[in-house]
Amino acid sequence: MTITSISDSTLKRLSRYLHYLHQQKARNPLLETVSASQIARDLNIHHTQVRKDLAVTGLIGVPKVGHSLTDLTKSIENFLNWNNTEDAFLAGAGNLGRALLGYSGFERVGIQITALFDNDPDKIGKEIMGREVLSIHRLPDLVRRMKVHMGIITAPASSAQEIADLMVEGGIEAIWNFAPVELKVPQDIIVESVDIYSSLAVLSRRLSEKIKGG
Amino acid sequence: MTITSISDSTLKRLSRYLHYLHQQKARNPLLETVSASQIARDLNIHHTQVRKDLAVTGLIGVPKVGHSLTDLTKSIENFLNWNNTEDAFLAGAGNLGRALLGYSGFERVGIQITALFDNDPDKIGKEIMGREVLSIHRLPDLVRRMKVHMGIITAPASSAQEIADLMVEGGIEAIWNFAPVELKVPQDIIVESVDIYSSLAVLSRRLSEKIKGG
Repeated sequence: MTITSISDSTLKRLSRYLHYLHQQKARNPLLETVSASQIARDLNIHHTQVRKDLAVTGLIGVPKVGHSLTDLTKSIENFLNWNNTEDAFLAGAGNLGRALLGYSGFERVGIQITALFDNDPDKIGKEIMGREVLSIHRLPDLVRRMKVHMGIITAPASSAQEIADLMVEGGIEAIWNFAPVELKVPQDIIVESVDIYSSLAVLSRRLSEKIKGG
Repeated sequence: MTITSISDSTLKRLSRYLHYLHQQKARNPLLETVSASQIARDLNIHHTQVRKDLAVTGLIGVPKVGHSLTDLTKSIENFLNWNNTEDAFLAGAGNLGRALLGYSGFERVGIQITALFDNDPDKIGKEIMGREVLSIHRLPDLVRRMKVHMGIITAPASSAQEIADLMVEGGIEAIWNFAPVELKVPQDIIVESVDIYSSLAVLSRRLSEKIKGG
């Protein structure tokens, strides 16, 4: 299975290359080609690594010319499956959930949030950004009926595990977790956590080193 | 300089250990000790790694007993500088900014958002969660006068670089960036980005492998 041998780090770098390509295009709409060595230099990644990463997507650059910006963008997007629209259920209708619901960037990465859940009786039945908030207890049945594969957890840490259990019960196969907890799920369920604290840990520590050291 | 030789990965794991300790305490308020091997098993990290990480904080466990839960928590929090309160300025008063402003967890990690900025004339002067939204152009001067070290960017990608420039101009030393862009800043400025797309890249790809492979 060569297909699953691609590391998380490669996938994360591919996503960074995409940001970079979009930024370059925004700065210079007439730009047509980009080279691996240019990406490497601007993102401070070794050029051998960039070439290896790009090769994974199946695209081959033209020597001395580089890659067509459009082809490279499409190639990475295809590889990350961002050109297929994936329906997702979101659980947790607070500010973070709202932020994700309103995120126009999701269309670009193939995510469509089709239903919104919460356990708060004050929120259930109300509309948030054009979507009715449904009771969290309806989640498993709706996952089954709508054959949804992806669940997003934007609830507080205290209810995240309970939500994950309901998602797994319904048949969700991949969970995008924004709650600062370690979820316990069966081995075949994919979990990716966005842990803002771990990023803050690096920032806080580096800042204190700088202030104390300077 | 042994102090700066601590890797980002160690710092991120320390933050995960803290989540774990809080979770364990929430599940069992009477719990008093925890061992490195228990953490290792539950988080699926090699026990040698856990021991090495914990040793960095200066705490030594008691053989066969492990660590006092309280001491270990404090020791990690001290190491990450989460017991000192750091003032931070937040730029971008949209849903994500609102989500961070309302995040009760920040007190626990020593972050206090003391001012809020935006470039939208419709938002400037209004109150959001008890704080007045100030014009982004006042940021550099206020950073200087209030001696703030940390800036948080929750603005869209298109204005993130401009905000980063204003932060650097004022004297911000560490930027926590939530916009999906590669910021260009002087070398001595610390930047930590929370890139939700790179996490989604892993999730989307793994899910597509699973669906196509299954």
